[in-house]
Amino acid sequence: MPVIEEMLDSYPKDLGSVDRAALVACIAAALECSQACTACADACLSEDMVADLVKCIRTNLDCADLCTAAVAVMSRHTGYDANITRQTVEACRAACAACADECERHADMHEHCRVCAEACRRCQEACDALLATL
Amino acid sequence: MPVIEEMLDSYPKDLGSVDRAALVACIAAALECSQACTACADACLSEDMVADLVKCIRTNLDCADLCTAAVAVMSRHTGYDANITRQTVEACRAACAACADECERHADMHEHCRVCAEACRRCQEACDALLATL
Amino acid sequence: MPVIEEMLDSYPKDLGSVDRAALVACIAAALECSQACTACADACLSEDMVADLVKCIRTNLDCADLCTAAVAVMSRHTGYDANITRQTVEACRAACAACADECERHADMHEHCRVCAEACRRCQEACDALLATL
Amino acid sequence: MPVIEEMLDSYPKDLGSVDRAALVACIAAALECSQACTACADACLSEDMVADLVKCIRTNLDCADLCTAAVAVMSRHTGYDANITRQTVEACRAACAACADECERHADMHEHCRVCAEACRRCQEACDALLATL
Repeated sequence: MPVIEEMLDSYPKDLGSVDRAALVACIAAALECSQACTACADACLSEDMVADLVKCIRTNLDCADLCTAAVAVMSRHTGYDANITRQTVEACRAACAACADECERHADMHEHCRVCAEACRRCQEACDALLATL
Repeated sequence: MPVIEEMLDSYPKDLGSVDRAALVACIAAALECSQACTACADACLSEDMVADLVKCIRTNLDCADLCTAAVAVMSRHTGYDANITRQTVEACRAACAACADECERHADMHEHCRVCAEACRRCQEACDALLATL
Repeated sequence: MPVIEEMLDSYPKDLGSVDRAALVACIAAALECSQACTACADACLSEDMVADLVKCIRTNLDCADLCTAAVAVMSRHTGYDANITRQTVEACRAACAACADECERHADMHEHCRVCAEACRRCQEACDALLATL
Repeated sequence: MPVIEEMLDSYPKDLGSVDRAALVACIAAALECSQACTACADACLSEDMVADLVKCIRTNLDCADLCTAAVAVMSRHTGYDANITRQTVEACRAACAACADECERHADMHEHCRVCAEACRRCQEACDALLATL
């Protein structure tokens, strides 16, 4: 999404030593992952075998909430606090890793879990890449 | 974002008469708008003339919150309740319209307000298009 | 929660003609309802009969999201836009009414649905009372 | 809020070795803190000296987002993942500590910062107490 990059480029003050490409990629991945997890939780709810998917639904919900919070924190630069950003991205990364693992278990049977697992894995990797630059 | 469409296509039950293209477009626009508004509020905070931008910041924050809620509600199809969806999209639309108007006032002076105003207007129009199909 | 009232009382500018008691009551009810709905969705997920509770879970999730957004919008007074506030509270009210109805259907069997139904009904009524003053 | 406790008590499966009192206290503190931070950010926006409060506003916004995410994660018990919960509560704790510090700097001048600093400190301590039991 070019808007993420345009918003970052128009920030009026100095961004410091942030890796812009890693930041934009992580915001984009977390936005995408948040929506995918919300949709996957709902798709799991509509499966006949929902009773086998309750852990998946729960992990989806956590991952959606943490990705949403991470998008917001990563989109702010005023009064930057590296500690808050790092811990937020780490929590997001942990949820993405757990959700990718869980969705992969059902990926052969449920296309929504396959798509969601890939979105979670991309977000986990984008968090790793961003954390390596902080 | 193709993931939004892939998640919708993999929903396991009948989606009823929903206009899939309008729904996908509105989810994508609201995701983009939510992030743009969070970033615009933060960019406004870092402007020297922040005192002139407080209404813009407040409208940005409301718009981000309502877009985020709308993305979540629109991404669920299980036990669909047309009334909740319609009222959620209407509230999102109202916030986008107000935020587009407010950001446009500062678009000549602040690039982040120009980019954000356009994202808000696109989301308002996507809400209108979706509401016309509900 | 006295903090809600203390924060409102310390707002530095004129609050206009807002009904403070109705506003504080609605913020408190929506905060409580948001948490109850998140917890009820999770408790439903852990019931053996989860397959019979999928509409309840979905309505809980919508209600939690809309209550959270409403708390945020109602907690802001700078650059007040009556139209956004009214539409947000109306969407919150619709979700609370639907969730109270749905949880009541399971209240005899599941204590979490009984407690959640009451929290939703209280929030619906607090929204009604606030809307009557806007 | 007795509803938090009633929802926890009605969870249908085994909660494991969780410290119920610490969990309920942390959910309650994070709910309260989230609303206080949203309201403090808005009150700061309406101060004539808003330009001196931009770091406070930004920290408030982060803290509100992380408290909201933490309330949601802490309110779920199905398919419990200690790692996600711990990292979420740690991120919430970091934001509360930073926001308490920042608001305390303005507590003598702004009553909303004084009230908010206390809510943040209570939530930080509730996170510490919960983390000690995980």
